[in-house]
Amino acid sequence: MESCTILPFSRSLSLLSRRPDRHEARPASSLFKRRSSHPARIRCHKMYVPGFGEASPEKKAANHLHKFFTYIAVRIVSAQLETYNREAYEELAEFLSRHSLNDGDKFCADLMRESSRHQSLALRILEVRSAYCKQDFEWDNLRRVASKVMDEANTRLMREYVLETSHAETERGK
Amino acid sequence: MESCTILPFSRSLSLLSRRPDRHEARPASSLFKRRSSHPARIRCHKMYVPGFGEASPEKKAANHLHKFFTYIAVRIVSAQLETYNREAYEELAEFLSRHSLNDGDKFCADLMRESSRHQSLALRILEVRSAYCKQDFEWDNLRRVASKVMDEANTRLMREYVLETSHAETERGK
Repeated sequence: MESCTILPFSRSLSLLSRRPDRHEARPASSLFKRRSSHPARIRCHKMYVPGFGEASPEKKAANHLHKFFTYIAVRIVSAQLETYNREAYEELAEFLSRHSLNDGDKFCADLMRESSRHQSLALRILEVRSAYCKQDFEWDNLRRVASKVMDEANTRLMREYVLETSHAETERGK
Repeated sequence: MESCTILPFSRSLSLLSRRPDRHEARPASSLFKRRSSHPARIRCHKMYVPGFGEASPEKKAANHLHKFFTYIAVRIVSAQLETYNREAYEELAEFLSRHSLNDGDKFCADLMRESSRHQSLALRILEVRSAYCKQDFEWDNLRRVASKVMDEANTRLMREYVLETSHAETERGK
């Protein structure tokens, strides 16, 4: 439980002119216990995430990824068609110009109902997005990359702030 | 490799009035090989995903999740503050009303520069989003939920289409 408050960039914090004082949010460990007024989360060893109602953060992220996979599948199918079936490729491109991909499921539903040829394309997109999600997408890599992106962003934000506030010209060369 | 084309809902396809014909995109396996004009992907056993330039789909998804984790961290810190530090809670809420959380990094950078008290809040948010990403977020669960969301969406889309086109009233009862 304690490990939640020991963070990889805590050393970098010492670069800053002052340590976070009492005004900051207390370490999450002190608030790990679930408040009785919130019925959702039972896992007491994790930080309480408010306001997600029925859906967990994982479900919310999965819904976002679902749209992303549809977008990827459309690109995959489009690239496949481009090489050997120009007619279908252009039909898909034309349909794409008229319909938003923001809601992937609605896009597929509309594509299915456009014509019998479009229906085949829609079925293919459903197949490809499922195969991509379950076989091709590198989930372990996603976790690694997300962790790396986090470290880099935190380090960059703090470095920029230190450089800006200290005006330490000597630091700029690093 | 062949498994990419054998999909869990292939049985459901037989419900439809016709099978996808030659007009559809060919099974991805026939296009697995990397085209020489695209220098990015080396893994030949996967579907070719075009148009991501330097960034892989995993990197793109990680960048989205990075923003999502910042959003979550702000909610966590805000909920923590609400219980024991109303002043800081209101300051954060006031800052939130003036700044968008769409770009999490920019939000944190601006928060750092607002005042020394806001700086402490920003550092806390950086800590929490890193801890959330590395410890609390359930990556395995994300994968499971994403797969489930995909299956349910594909089944639903096809069921709705079949019901709509066949006008099979008897099916509606199921």
